[in-house]
Amino acid sequence: MKLFSIIISMIFLTGVVQAKEYPSLMMTKKGMEQMKKGLGSYPAFDASVAQTRAKADIAVNSTIVVPIPKDGGGGATHEKHKDNYYSMYYCGIMYQITGEKKYAAFIAKMLDEYLKLYPTLDYHPVKMSSTPGRLFWQTLNDFVWLVHTSVAYDCIYEYLPKEKREELNSKLFKPMANFIMDGSDVNNKTFNKMHNHGTWACAAVGMIGYVMNDEELVKKALFGSDLSGKNGGYMQQLEELFSPDGYFTEGAYYQRYAIWPFVIFAQAINNNEPEREIFLYRDAILKRAVTTLTQMTYNGYFFTINDALTKGLSAQELVFAVNISYAADNSQKHLLSISKKFQSFFLPTDAGFVVARDISEGEDREFVLKSQLLRDGSDGTKGGLAIFRSKKEGENSTFLMKATSHGLSHGHYDKLTISYYDDGYPILVDYGSSRFLNIVVKYNGGYTPLNDKFSMSTIAHNTVTVDKKSHYNGDIKLSSKYSPSIYCYDISNPDIMVSSAFEANASPGVKMQRTNAVIENLGGVRIVLDIFKLSSESEHTYDLPFYYNGDMISLSTPYKKAVNEMTLFGEDNGYQFLWKEATAKPIDSKVCFTWLKGRRFYSITTVSGQNTDLFFVRTGANDPEYFLRTDPGFIIRENNAKNHTFVSAIETHGMYDLIVEKTENAVSAVNSLKILEDNDNYTLVFIEVNGDKAEFRIDYNRGTSEKKWTLIRYR
Amino acid sequence: MKLFSIIISMIFLTGVVQAKEYPSLMMTKKGMEQMKKGLGSYPAFDASVAQTRAKADIAVNSTIVVPIPKDGGGGATHEKHKDNYYSMYYCGIMYQITGEKKYAAFIAKMLDEYLKLYPTLDYHPVKMSSTPGRLFWQTLNDFVWLVHTSVAYDCIYEYLPKEKREELNSKLFKPMANFIMDGSDVNNKTFNKMHNHGTWACAAVGMIGYVMNDEELVKKALFGSDLSGKNGGYMQQLEELFSPDGYFTEGAYYQRYAIWPFVIFAQAINNNEPEREIFLYRDAILKRAVTTLTQMTYNGYFFTINDALTKGLSAQELVFAVNISYAADNSQKHLLSISKKFQSFFLPTDAGFVVARDISEGEDREFVLKSQLLRDGSDGTKGGLAIFRSKKEGENSTFLMKATSHGLSHGHYDKLTISYYDDGYPILVDYGSSRFLNIVVKYNGGYTPLNDKFSMSTIAHNTVTVDKKSHYNGDIKLSSKYSPSIYCYDISNPDIMVSSAFEANASPGVKMQRTNAVIENLGGVRIVLDIFKLSSESEHTYDLPFYYNGDMISLSTPYKKAVNEMTLFGEDNGYQFLWKEATAKPIDSKVCFTWLKGRRFYSITTVSGQNTDLFFVRTGANDPEYFLRTDPGFIIRENNAKNHTFVSAIETHGMYDLIVEKTENAVSAVNSLKILEDNDNYTLVFIEVNGDKAEFRIDYNRGTSEKKWTLIRYR
Repeated sequence: MKLFSIIISMIFLTGVVQAKEYPSLMMTKKGMEQMKKGLGSYPAFDASVAQTRAKADIAVNSTIVVPIPKDGGGGATHEKHKDNYYSMYYCGIMYQITGEKKYAAFIAKMLDEYLKLYPTLDYHPVKMSSTPGRLFWQTLNDFVWLVHTSVAYDCIYEYLPKEKREELNSKLFKPMANFIMDGSDVNNKTFNKMHNHGTWACAAVGMIGYVMNDEELVKKALFGSDLSGKNGGYMQQLEELFSPDGYFTEGAYYQRYAIWPFVIFAQAINNNEPEREIFLYRDAILKRAVTTLTQMTYNGYFFTINDALTKGLSAQELVFAVNISYAADNSQKHLLSISKKFQSFFLPTDAGFVVARDISEGEDREFVLKSQLLRDGSDGTKGGLAIFRSKKEGENSTFLMKATSHGLSHGHYDKLTISYYDDGYPILVDYGSSRFLNIVVKYNGGYTPLNDKFSMSTIAHNTVTVDKKSHYNGDIKLSSKYSPSIYCYDISNPDIMVSSAFEANASPGVKMQRTNAVIENLGGVRIVLDIFKLSSESEHTYDLPFYYNGDMISLSTPYKKAVNEMTLFGEDNGYQFLWKEATAKPIDSKVCFTWLKGRRFYSITTVSGQNTDLFFVRTGANDPEYFLRTDPGFIIRENNAKNHTFVSAIETHGMYDLIVEKTENAVSAVNSLKILEDNDNYTLVFIEVNGDKAEFRIDYNRGTSEKKWTLIRYR
Repeated sequence: MKLFSIIISMIFLTGVVQAKEYPSLMMTKKGMEQMKKGLGSYPAFDASVAQTRAKADIAVNSTIVVPIPKDGGGGATHEKHKDNYYSMYYCGIMYQITGEKKYAAFIAKMLDEYLKLYPTLDYHPVKMSSTPGRLFWQTLNDFVWLVHTSVAYDCIYEYLPKEKREELNSKLFKPMANFIMDGSDVNNKTFNKMHNHGTWACAAVGMIGYVMNDEELVKKALFGSDLSGKNGGYMQQLEELFSPDGYFTEGAYYQRYAIWPFVIFAQAINNNEPEREIFLYRDAILKRAVTTLTQMTYNGYFFTINDALTKGLSAQELVFAVNISYAADNSQKHLLSISKKFQSFFLPTDAGFVVARDISEGEDREFVLKSQLLRDGSDGTKGGLAIFRSKKEGENSTFLMKATSHGLSHGHYDKLTISYYDDGYPILVDYGSSRFLNIVVKYNGGYTPLNDKFSMSTIAHNTVTVDKKSHYNGDIKLSSKYSPSIYCYDISNPDIMVSSAFEANASPGVKMQRTNAVIENLGGVRIVLDIFKLSSESEHTYDLPFYYNGDMISLSTPYKKAVNEMTLFGEDNGYQFLWKEATAKPIDSKVCFTWLKGRRFYSITTVSGQNTDLFFVRTGANDPEYFLRTDPGFIIRENNAKNHTFVSAIETHGMYDLIVEKTENAVSAVNSLKILEDNDNYTLVFIEVNGDKAEFRIDYNRGTSEKKWTLIRYR
């Protein structure tokens, strides 16, 4: 009778009726059995297991240290708590694989230490974050701690005596979940936020919920604090954080980070509640998000739009994403080749096993980078990222125009900015972020103050700054209200691919439209036509930078370089971080700047006039603590202009071969570049390259179904 | 009777009695037969033949253009004449391989054009060189033209009618050989010079001599204009241009260039006069020279000492060197792995065939980079290059001290300079040269004026500048008179390798001795102790730069970085090309500078005092035409010092892993660095790293057989 009422009350409280099986998060009992049978058959997978075992063995042979939190990112206590969750995670998996009790005992012992420590903690003493955690300086790291520790706990749940579980549940994990959800208004906001931090928070709470069999936590994680599914939670994040094209609004670098809790939690949901068919939810949005993320790369590295560092397909998050997504849908054979080419590791779980097995059985298929428009916004209407890949044999070239929405707190004021990659290198560079991740002496490893001040500013980007002020005057609230519109994206002909986007709100009283035509083989070279139209009724200064990578070779007009004194390019809004390295005044109706990177030459030929000024700048001024790189830029300035259209030809030419000491076509082949007409309805440009003549016309007021551009080649 | 007298006169005139067989330079009839039999069996070799054929086919299908010389290096006529000799060279080889007459006909036709052009030519119109050629702006390129064309001519000699040969011999090639040898006093000097240009000249004259069966030319090429063998010629070059260790005095980059005519001419000599045993001459000096050249590399790239650009084992010269040297001595199996790893091409000749075949048969053996002292000077007494390679598992580290003689016209004023490479990157950098090879707009592709003014200056190097003046006050004649002495080079213990060298003449009144101890695993890190002792009776300013590669992370003392205005580091002697980026004054008895490159941290901890000033500089000031890179440097200055000893610990530490976002040991582990004693007899340094204590003592007045240094580790 007593037992019966306990069961009844359990049903009442949590709604769970079936006996739960462990492990249940990253692995299942059945998957583990299959994996164990396969051990020894796939050396690459065995190596990942061996690596995991090595790390677990280091852990079990070390003294357990659970320090009182003290340091910021990269500091000793920070790194120790990180180490600890990794150690528990590795040991949990090794316990499942080997059944050796030492691994379980290690976790149990360490959890006991956290059980003692956690209840004594207030907010973290480093007061650098607006969302301070308890174990770490920001709650985000607390979430990540709990995600990993949940996996470890899940792996040894059945090993622990019931009383110990109950003690851990009630005194460590439940309070931690509560702190994450409701420790403060800010925490509650973060938990319910449509943001990658929110996803981590939900994954942490949901995963520990599954382990503890606490349906309330799981429900809140899935549907938000109020359980409505409309004011937060993982399901809403799946709806809102990705566009229909699988683009995450913060950009590639943070999509990498965000995808981690998304896929790991999805794996846990699928293992616990397969009936949710989470991987198929919203037309399999997770699968698309993973594919889109892998597509936002060049040579395996993510596009450096927004707050990015140099990371790519080898990042640990991508191992999770690729392994879990492939395990969920085995038809994605291209994921196998990403694993094979860029990743030296498999998850030592069911998912990783399947990937390793199928690669070993030769099922991998080519990972093809595609030209595509990635629409931004949950409904796909908030601009987008236009990507063009050269289809030419032997070419490895990518052109990018970013006309996305702001991208939350990691977004930059960079409407209509462009990037260009070729022959293995960034050629026109997006600066990315100013941050020395995990290096304590550099601003505690966080974003440096110059990230806001310079990296986010408009002048740091390959787009137009109006009157020396950042887009939306650097106001994130304002910038987040609007987004550019994609006017056209046309890749029907791989030899001439065109995109065009406009932005009406970034600079008061100025309408901007940027059109790019990637033309293969005009006079034997690749030309990216860049038509940046600015319309205004009042006079402005328009600055258009091209941050180039390589050695400055020549400018077609005389220039004056700073020789014994270097001064600032400007006073504020990011300008103060640029050294004015050289200045020039065009003497012709066009001007050509050529640089060299690796084996190729690149030139920008631009239409110039009386009011044009040219500058070479270099980042690193007003940077007393060496937070910035020293990157070079070429800036075209148009003074006192109302309407103005920058027309430039970005040219990829020549061959520089040091091995046999041969140089070919080091000089730009653009013989002529002219604006034939430029009005409200269209811009018509004439270009002659190596004697090959063409006219390109972009029409501005065409309807959705009408053709927006024309290229006439004189033959 | 008439025939008999002709034969007699032939013997009399040329001394040649045997009937000559063709081809005779790069290939032999016998070798060709063997190669032809092997075609189709070694795909990698077939690919090289196919590439050669492709190039030859492009040539035979193009219009022959032999322009009147007009342009400098990289310019149109320059490149055309280069193209032409390559085309003839490829066609010659393809004619030998295939017997297809179109290849021979192409060469015959092109030679006819040169036959018409050459007699009309005076000195080249671009008057940039002190040794103007006829086809090219400098004779050097004329030599290279003739070397290649000789090979082509040799390949089709038997194809041409006798009268055509005689016409070509008497009106084109003999005049060309005469121009090279005696066209002017300067030409005669170059031909007889102990210099790589001399080797090219001799190879050109000797090779065309062999083809024309002109023994006089061959003899002059081998033994100099006066045939004495003491005043010029290839044999004397073999004696004098390489040290007993196979080091070529101009350094790795020019040894690469010099080795080309050396090996190609050796191949021709060996094919024509095997009895000379040219490859065994002087204890097989050529073989040693090739090995030494391949050893002067890091990750396949040559050390950038002296006038160097970025080149390495993939350079075309190295294909010649490796293929020909291996063919001459098949026991050198490590050469096969160089070919395999770094070269994508084989010579389409006997030699290339043998290399391809033996690689295919798995005979390649590991190419092991060794710690070694490469003595400079024909007798090995003119200083040397001390190379240290880490033997630690998983490490890829090279330390270098250059204490060589000046190194002819491409030498720098850089006595006792050091370089350091680690984990795949240059870490302490030798600037190399300022040159945009073959890029016409950059000073016609030649060395820029800043090469002499900056790249060669002492302040551009990681060694001490005294009183802001370059060594030997930048006077090459003076600098060439002296050389440093190697005091000690000890690699008997791979965990503590030591070198020491002194230089008494570079700066008047100042004696310099630099001692480096590469200590593996002191407190868990690699420490290179750098003890630079300066002795003088009068006061001087001593500047010791460390040009580092990477991101400046921290300095242990407050520094002031230029924020809104940047000025010059100095006025002349190279100083004027450095921006003064930051300054600092040490506040402690040691100061530590840390930077990050790739996955590792590097620190320089240096003993500092009241008179020490610190600077961060960047190259690129006073450079109105963008000839320089923008490299960063850290400079330690000691003011008003008579005797002074710079003691620094160059430390390799930590791990920066962006993939899993982990940072370890980002902070220098050098707890203490002190000079315990410093006198005329010895310097005694105390160092503590991660609690691991040691004393290092270098004794200065020890005899040859005595031990010069001691390391005491406290255990």
